[in-house]
Amino acid sequence: MIELTIRETADFLLNRDHFLILCHRNPDGDTLGSGYALRNALRALGKQAQLICNDLPGRKFSYLFPTEELKSHTDARIETVVSVDVADCNLLGSALSVYQNRIDLAIDHHRSHRPFAPFALVDKNAAANCEIIYRLLLEMKAEITKELADFLYAGIMTDTGCFCYRNVTPATHRIAADLIALGADFGEINHQLFEVISQRELLLQKKVLEDLTYHCGGKVAMITITLDLLHKTKVSESELDGITALPRKIEGVEIGIVIKQRGEEEYKISMRSSGLIDVSKICEKFQGGGHVGAAGCTLYGDLDSVKERLLYAVEEVF
Amino acid sequence: MIELTIRETADFLLNRDHFLILCHRNPDGDTLGSGYALRNALRALGKQAQLICNDLPGRKFSYLFPTEELKSHTDARIETVVSVDVADCNLLGSALSVYQNRIDLAIDHHRSHRPFAPFALVDKNAAANCEIIYRLLLEMKAEITKELADFLYAGIMTDTGCFCYRNVTPATHRIAADLIALGADFGEINHQLFEVISQRELLLQKKVLEDLTYHCGGKVAMITITLDLLHKTKVSESELDGITALPRKIEGVEIGIVIKQRGEEEYKISMRSSGLIDVSKICEKFQGGGHVGAAGCTLYGDLDSVKERLLYAVEEVF
Repeated sequence: MIELTIRETADFLLNRDHFLILCHRNPDGDTLGSGYALRNALRALGKQAQLICNDLPGRKFSYLFPTEELKSHTDARIETVVSVDVADCNLLGSALSVYQNRIDLAIDHHRSHRPFAPFALVDKNAAANCEIIYRLLLEMKAEITKELADFLYAGIMTDTGCFCYRNVTPATHRIAADLIALGADFGEINHQLFEVISQRELLLQKKVLEDLTYHCGGKVAMITITLDLLHKTKVSESELDGITALPRKIEGVEIGIVIKQRGEEEYKISMRSSGLIDVSKICEKFQGGGHVGAAGCTLYGDLDSVKERLLYAVEEVF
Repeated sequence: MIELTIRETADFLLNRDHFLILCHRNPDGDTLGSGYALRNALRALGKQAQLICNDLPGRKFSYLFPTEELKSHTDARIETVVSVDVADCNLLGSALSVYQNRIDLAIDHHRSHRPFAPFALVDKNAAANCEIIYRLLLEMKAEITKELADFLYAGIMTDTGCFCYRNVTPATHRIAADLIALGADFGEINHQLFEVISQRELLLQKKVLEDLTYHCGGKVAMITITLDLLHKTKVSESELDGITALPRKIEGVEIGIVIKQRGEEEYKISMRSSGLIDVSKICEKFQGGGHVGAAGCTLYGDLDSVKERLLYAVEEVF
């Protein structure tokens, strides 16, 4: 793999045509923002460019990203295949696996990036891949319209949790400033992508709160998401991020535990700690593992016995 | 009132000493961030400066703002009184009302600023007062230490809802970039001020979700916060922002209604709309008022009859 600079990548793209751009499966705002911005910029520069993805984006993205053509491409003369925000070619998904060995250029920001293309533009310090795309479009002298600014802002906002995550750098904010100056409708994007919550999600949240329990004098909080609950509320796996982050946000809680049912008598446990307690030690007792602040394991049996064994192991560390 | 420029304000401060800085009552991150940053910068420049406030900050602020001296000052020779983030001198609170006519300089960013000091530095385009303080400290050539960067970042984050509110400008992000480069511990500040939720607040949230109702085919969502509920959960008025914003975040909801009990048979209603429906028209029917997207009124009677009259008026507009 040859690592390109921003300037070299700009030349690489300016010298080619008939682009096919690939997003990662289960697309988020950053891969979509990167893909749509790069595709539209290339088109504005007079080139043929199409964008495809293994899955259609979730409902909340539809207001920003038109999804008409994402499932297949119509250009018989594809010459250049570019992946955006794809850390590993396995993350393209089955429908795009046919391109795994045909990717010419990977543009990515993941620390876990595993090289799969002959050329790559990888900046592991970028909080979002859209930061890289923004700098690339400037280098290509592409016009960054309001529409492109919206795409790029949405990507940055997604991967930084509205500028809250610890991956944010001064450069992230400086690019956000530029994008807002270019017309990015940040208020509406924030509302649509972050604020809006469905009736189904609220119902799930209510049920989970009813079941929340505290242990070890409030130092442990535990919630359970059963298959029955997901079925009844019609909430999908991809909509669970908010609720699964809840236990460790509670004041005084040192270990947050989420129990997710996987099968009749199979439960996936994820533990998060504030860093004071090494939760990987607890999960190792059940053949699981992870890091000091985040670990997981799988337990089998009925729910009551799973909770009992888990809490016994947790109580031992206090 | 004489409006000063940033440069003139810098000179005004550099030429004086023995400062008393006043925050507004029920202090938030922006008035505290402004006050602590200005106080410590003046001290670093060799001046006497103290900071006072009518109320001690809420629990979540304590990790960032040491509150030892906020209730009174110990300088017998106060020469210069400066208010920060105070839109109206009535907002100083009763304990500070003695200073109402002694304020020499008001530094504020509220669009609703009502002049009360002979000199003022008011920038109504600043999303947070801390943006103005940051520019002022640069102009005064004060050293912006990591501690000052933390204070200023906390203020900006508070008044912009983590850069989500529509008051954000490119300048807001550029200042945030500078503050992070100066060492602001944004990850921890975001966690402490925004993420942490108390067991009491969660309990209230659960109770309110149990009571949430939808009307007009899901276009209206309504929650009720009774005095009994606040009493039982021990949640204070100042901790209600999150929950009262909920109804209008629900997908498909055009009017979010929050009913807050004020007395035995007195209920304060606040309505928020997505802008499609003018809620001030509805509130006017009950001698209330407001704007297209946000309005309020007060209804008297038992809760059931209040809800009935309210919903009757709301249904009329659909």
